[in-house]
Amino acid sequence: MRACYPGSFDPLTLGHLDIIERAAPLCAHLTVAVVHNPSKQTLFSLAERQQILENQLAHLGNVSVDHFSGLLVEYVRKMDYQAVVRGLRDSSDAPIELQMARLNREMLPHCETLMLAAAGHLSHVSSSFVREIARLGGPIDQLVTPFVAAQVKQKLTSKEAS
Amino acid sequence: MRACYPGSFDPLTLGHLDIIERAAPLCAHLTVAVVHNPSKQTLFSLAERQQILENQLAHLGNVSVDHFSGLLVEYVRKMDYQAVVRGLRDSSDAPIELQMARLNREMLPHCETLMLAAAGHLSHVSSSFVREIARLGGPIDQLVTPFVAAQVKQKLTSKEAS
Amino acid sequence: MRACYPGSFDPLTLGHLDIIERAAPLCAHLTVAVVHNPSKQTLFSLAERQQILENQLAHLGNVSVDHFSGLLVEYVRKMDYQAVVRGLRDSSDAPIELQMARLNREMLPHCETLMLAAAGHLSHVSSSFVREIARLGGPIDQLVTPFVAAQVKQKLTSKEAS
Amino acid sequence: MRACYPGSFDPLTLGHLDIIERAAPLCAHLTVAVVHNPSKQTLFSLAERQQILENQLAHLGNVSVDHFSGLLVEYVRKMDYQAVVRGLRDSSDAPIELQMARLNREMLPHCETLMLAAAGHLSHVSSSFVREIARLGGPIDQLVTPFVAAQVKQKLTSKEAS
Amino acid sequence: MRACYPGSFDPLTLGHLDIIERAAPLCAHLTVAVVHNPSKQTLFSLAERQQILENQLAHLGNVSVDHFSGLLVEYVRKMDYQAVVRGLRDSSDAPIELQMARLNREMLPHCETLMLAAAGHLSHVSSSFVREIARLGGPIDQLVTPFVAAQVKQKLTSKEAS
Amino acid sequence: MRACYPGSFDPLTLGHLDIIERAAPLCAHLTVAVVHNPSKQTLFSLAERQQILENQLAHLGNVSVDHFSGLLVEYVRKMDYQAVVRGLRDSSDAPIELQMARLNREMLPHCETLMLAAAGHLSHVSSSFVREIARLGGPIDQLVTPFVAAQVKQKLTSKEAS
Repeated sequence: MRACYPGSFDPLTLGHLDIIERAAPLCAHLTVAVVHNPSKQTLFSLAERQQILENQLAHLGNVSVDHFSGLLVEYVRKMDYQAVVRGLRDSSDAPIELQMARLNREMLPHCETLMLAAAGHLSHVSSSFVREIARLGGPIDQLVTPFVAAQVKQKLTSKEAS
Repeated sequence: MRACYPGSFDPLTLGHLDIIERAAPLCAHLTVAVVHNPSKQTLFSLAERQQILENQLAHLGNVSVDHFSGLLVEYVRKMDYQAVVRGLRDSSDAPIELQMARLNREMLPHCETLMLAAAGHLSHVSSSFVREIARLGGPIDQLVTPFVAAQVKQKLTSKEAS
Repeated sequence: MRACYPGSFDPLTLGHLDIIERAAPLCAHLTVAVVHNPSKQTLFSLAERQQILENQLAHLGNVSVDHFSGLLVEYVRKMDYQAVVRGLRDSSDAPIELQMARLNREMLPHCETLMLAAAGHLSHVSSSFVREIARLGGPIDQLVTPFVAAQVKQKLTSKEAS
Repeated sequence: MRACYPGSFDPLTLGHLDIIERAAPLCAHLTVAVVHNPSKQTLFSLAERQQILENQLAHLGNVSVDHFSGLLVEYVRKMDYQAVVRGLRDSSDAPIELQMARLNREMLPHCETLMLAAAGHLSHVSSSFVREIARLGGPIDQLVTPFVAAQVKQKLTSKEAS
Repeated sequence: MRACYPGSFDPLTLGHLDIIERAAPLCAHLTVAVVHNPSKQTLFSLAERQQILENQLAHLGNVSVDHFSGLLVEYVRKMDYQAVVRGLRDSSDAPIELQMARLNREMLPHCETLMLAAAGHLSHVSSSFVREIARLGGPIDQLVTPFVAAQVKQKLTSKEAS
Repeated sequence: MRACYPGSFDPLTLGHLDIIERAAPLCAHLTVAVVHNPSKQTLFSLAERQQILENQLAHLGNVSVDHFSGLLVEYVRKMDYQAVVRGLRDSSDAPIELQMARLNREMLPHCETLMLAAAGHLSHVSSSFVREIARLGGPIDQLVTPFVAAQVKQKLTSKEAS
């Protein structure tokens, strides 16, 4: 199975990493695909988000990093992926994920979405919490890897300086 | 990926069939595994449920039918499956599925559960609705295949006669 | 609009009464239809549940009481109702109600289900809570009318005596 | 029953159309009421949204199109509607719909909200998905009528040209 | 137990008041803590929100009003509160509240969040509804106290005049 | 605050233990109250469930074990507790907990229910899962303490022998 795991990864969290490390063994190849949405402001640039992913996923032999803009199904069609991987943190993530999975299959019938349950101890981890806590000066060490934590702190320091 | 799709299949519905036909192309091999729970009364016997599945899944080259009793994770461990496939009919199925997926990973860490969204037009289809409607003499033609509908009617007729 | 409001009404609660009194003005005629399910044990007999309803709904000119057994859609078809009225106590009632509404439309396409939100102060009222609290000797005065409360107490007393 | 079906209709989707066509036979008259919110940016102007609705609902004899601004209950009071019609796409729509239905009844006690379940095959259809997919150049033919699809494409082309 | 009840209180609603009056008897001391978020626009200034709270809570002997900015857990740590009080209006409030409660305990292990169910007749009351209805000229008398209603009207009049 | 934590505790899980250990420091005294429901079959007798609790909670100075039958609010009234403690494992526990909390306040207005979020890594732990897994011969070491695991195994062995 050739699959992709799309997301903003702004930044990569322990929740994302858990899904990637668990999905990879099920796939012949897994592409982590960073969404590039020019009209949405992000903490890290597209290039930075890709670099962080490449650094952090180097230990996974069958995982590569890519990016796309526009419709996910167009990207899936072009790259000929068989499946899209998504994580469900809590049952409250299910409504929007089911709607998007159905919408995507309607546009591209063979495009299956495979949902994995986040590990229970990571069910509260999200990129937006990471950004918000870091901006308020709080600890993010239990939400991201040390490498990502350092990147976030450096980014926020350079932003304040500018 | 070698996966199994466990369930009672009492009887096989169009909802089950949709998940099986969509999951099969993602797997090297998919085993549809009928749960045998001696303490739970079913409309069809274990052998009957397996026969219906074998009849209805004959067109799928990489799908086979099996059964198990006891813990799902024990069966997964013994057969060395990499993943368990489950369908989500509606977002309200998510809470129990997440709980079971987490419980199973705690007992068998590499046992991943892959959840697929039921097609929207099948989101209300369940085996228990099939049995209840058939018992009340209603139409089940939009919930199961013609073959299964005939089996259900024959079974109910023979039960009433006895 | 000719509509029916089906239910077990075992017994009629203030929640049911609220839905009936609010739905009646929207209908040319509203039939409150007691489900008769011979295989399910109830506190009150079918005749008793109908009598309670007739007593309590006498002030509503365009409301009558009826009963049915078997499939709701068969009853709707036979009586030529245009709509089925249902109350949603809390958002957690929605999943099963949506499934049943879709299932019923699949069997009888013109059979619409109209869902009304229970009043907030009645969102915790259910017949099963009434029966359970009464059996444990607790107060049910805020869940049912004084007439129904008296009927419940009398019924439980006569059951214990027998 | 005189009812209204309020919404932004930016643009009209197959989901809206399904609710209108199913609610109309239950009403003496059904008014589709376009919300005019000057502080919210829309793809189509108020006049355009009304024109699309009038064009697409011409086959429904007892349906008319109107608009309102300000509080829905003020509009309902002024026009003396007996009920407000709303569609529930998925059970996850229920919480906000129940809150608004209760709030509206508190401000205008006889203002009933009748919720209908969207057809299962339309449960993932929303105006915001239509706009987002169209902006990204994707297909919207299974979400809106051909007439609306053409209007959306023309609108986006003229916006890009300007 | 020394606890705090954090929120924006923009403005204080009958829902907030209900939670405060019910939580206070359970606490040795309860601090109502107004969140000061400089990047978020509010109807009332921080000082105004605090004044309204002080006016409306004067009858509660063991309740005081405070404010904080930044991370809630930092404030809880500094003030040495044992618990954070939160209201659940409807079951749909639970997902975000559980996520935040878990996140806060991860950052400050002894920081417990105690959730209370809003009274049923207040389950649809929120500050954002109060602001929206008031802006549209609707009645807010059943959502806030007369004092708060007067403050809201005066504030909106002075804003329009400016 | 004098509070009680009611439940079946059939048997005590790590989820229960987590709630008790976190709630105890917030209370002057916390009573763990075992529900005795003669019409419901349990794995452990009332006496056994109390003994397990007493053994496992001996390290908590302000916690005692009790039991009750009948209505919870009657027990709360008699013992003059100020609050009832409940754990929410997942957001899907919220609907029934909110209904019961409201029902209990209606019968006993000062009876507050304080809901705590289960720790994320325990969100899938329930007594019924413990019993089911143990009956099927599976591992329960991550759901209960070693002491409870031994009690469960001994109980199931003695049941099979009888």
